[in-house]
Amino acid sequence: MLDVIADSLGLDRERVEGLVRSRVIRIRGYRGLLYASLRRELAGYPEGTVVIFGRDWSRVIHGYPPIQRAVLLRVAVPRHFIDRVVVEEKLNGYNVRVALIDDRVVAITRGGLICPYTTARLNRLLGPKLREALRELGPEEHYLAGEVIGLENPYTRYFYPEAPRFGYFVFDVFREGKPLPPRRRDEVTEKHGVPHVPVLGIVDKDNVDEIRGIIAKLHREGREGVVLKDPEYRVNPLKYTTPATNIGDLRIGMRFFMEEGRSFLFSRILREIFRAYEEGLEGPKLDSLALELGSAILRPAIETVKQIARGEMVAEEFELEFANADELNEFLDYMASLGIDLIVEKTWEENGYLRARIKKPKDTWIEVRKILETGLTPID
Amino acid sequence: MLDVIADSLGLDRERVEGLVRSRVIRIRGYRGLLYASLRRELAGYPEGTVVIFGRDWSRVIHGYPPIQRAVLLRVAVPRHFIDRVVVEEKLNGYNVRVALIDDRVVAITRGGLICPYTTARLNRLLGPKLREALRELGPEEHYLAGEVIGLENPYTRYFYPEAPRFGYFVFDVFREGKPLPPRRRDEVTEKHGVPHVPVLGIVDKDNVDEIRGIIAKLHREGREGVVLKDPEYRVNPLKYTTPATNIGDLRIGMRFFMEEGRSFLFSRILREIFRAYEEGLEGPKLDSLALELGSAILRPAIETVKQIARGEMVAEEFELEFANADELNEFLDYMASLGIDLIVEKTWEENGYLRARIKKPKDTWIEVRKILETGLTPID
Repeated sequence: MLDVIADSLGLDRERVEGLVRSRVIRIRGYRGLLYASLRRELAGYPEGTVVIFGRDWSRVIHGYPPIQRAVLLRVAVPRHFIDRVVVEEKLNGYNVRVALIDDRVVAITRGGLICPYTTARLNRLLGPKLREALRELGPEEHYLAGEVIGLENPYTRYFYPEAPRFGYFVFDVFREGKPLPPRRRDEVTEKHGVPHVPVLGIVDKDNVDEIRGIIAKLHREGREGVVLKDPEYRVNPLKYTTPATNIGDLRIGMRFFMEEGRSFLFSRILREIFRAYEEGLEGPKLDSLALELGSAILRPAIETVKQIARGEMVAEEFELEFANADELNEFLDYMASLGIDLIVEKTWEENGYLRARIKKPKDTWIEVRKILETGLTPID
Repeated sequence: MLDVIADSLGLDRERVEGLVRSRVIRIRGYRGLLYASLRRELAGYPEGTVVIFGRDWSRVIHGYPPIQRAVLLRVAVPRHFIDRVVVEEKLNGYNVRVALIDDRVVAITRGGLICPYTTARLNRLLGPKLREALRELGPEEHYLAGEVIGLENPYTRYFYPEAPRFGYFVFDVFREGKPLPPRRRDEVTEKHGVPHVPVLGIVDKDNVDEIRGIIAKLHREGREGVVLKDPEYRVNPLKYTTPATNIGDLRIGMRFFMEEGRSFLFSRILREIFRAYEEGLEGPKLDSLALELGSAILRPAIETVKQIARGEMVAEEFELEFANADELNEFLDYMASLGIDLIVEKTWEENGYLRARIKKPKDTWIEVRKILETGLTPID
């Protein structure tokens, strides 16, 4: 097995042994499939790359590459792009690569793990369509990357009217680590009834105002932002998020302020600093942003402290859907193997499915209880 | 020399060799004195501990121990203290230990370096008084710890009417790493005309309201906060800062937002979260805190971006006083040895001293210029 990993990634066998020992390479299984996943960039393969093995075959699925963030659109867009720019909506969910392995549709998270919950839901929602699309593309070299959105997942929860519970929207089709042009992605997915992310416009790179208009509209609708792509993928994409998201993220994240903390806060504040600069906000408009920012930071955090002081537990809560108890247990085992012990509050049957209300306890709960007890902070 | 360090700290010679190589122990000189300083806690000695050697002697000066921060006074004070609490003013400057080495008054920074500037200024201001105080205490085992405040120093700049330019206020007298009771500190320093930090009250530990009253007054005066001590130093002190400082620090720090960033932001926000909770702030009062917080974060940062966009350099500026050009050069060499290249803008003579206007360039300048040029952020 180590030989297969070494061959697949072009590394020495000894190097691979060392990396497995130091847990940079993690070996895992999913329903009889064995795979290795990279916890950081290695030998040109991005973090989250997986190598999946069968008896006599192996498959490399590249990690999804990080996308650079623009903070000054007027500077970045004309400078970065060549001629035209495809403006696609950035959906707020989690990044999932889908591949056909041994003719099974498998869902791989950004971190490079096969998530049993996502795989099962995706199969129920779009299994045959995804299989057909990948078969046409050539399932040995191709895989899809897209966003899972909706409320019924264990990772992120934003409500989207187009997929209130669980949806999947493809944003890239990859062939051995290289993305196909957006037009080709749309042809293939549309032919097979697989949803793709909305294309909101194709504009000239010097027409930044049109892009800003699109973003302003998304902001008013409380949506996340855009990914800007070259129509032929000759240069890497860029992302930009709406202030609704920057501030909204803080508002949600600060509920669990002890886990999010530092970088989370700083990165979002940075975006707003440069947006306020680019848009020339001042006077009452800047005050209103300052109030919104300050409130998004303080209010959810104070609410959490109060809640814990009242003796309530602070946890993320979600409702998930399973085919049966086995599928639920498989998911709980998977999360436990990541060090996350979930609490199943309640299960019930609905339309032939097993539904579960689940709590994910937060470190904030433990940390804040300690502060409430001692009055002292562990930090500085 | 390594043997002396090993003996003084109770470590193996080999261990010391390794620590010097890995730069945990740093060897330095100051005007013919050689010393080693610890860059982290080691064998029970706090970070910033120094070992100073002469031909046939050596001296250990313990690092100043970190002081825990209270964020909920009503909980922390009654729980932490035994009976009574000495409320001392926490001054906003930098922590300096003063020892008599070979009959010379030497100033050691928190990090464990002999600062030539601080040493020279302190000698001019209080040299004979400090020497007398230490001689009476026993200069072999005793040293002082205090705050340097005022505008004329290269590290911090807060204006204090009682020491507008350069002042030193003792907050602890140590005997071999153990602090003497506050009363004893006051006796010795007052006898020799050495200033000590203001003692604002000695209160019963259950009278938290009186402490809060003292803090409220400091807040209205824009002063930093308090250090709470046991009268006999039977338990460690605690510190608490006024909101004026928490928010004011952000306002000052965010001017150089790329260097301060993360932990700096988070730790101050944390203090305000628990203060707002403890004081039960809500409605318009919470809004006004949120606005103040948001403004302190955004406004100085946006101002810096604008300044850099106009082509101006972003740097800290300060004015220092030297006896002569040699003393200035010794200071510049010292800062350069710390990796800080200062720019001397202007020098002139005044009342027999050499004054210098100095700029310390900031990373924020470089980072923001990069963002203004590319429109992209290095941070997600």
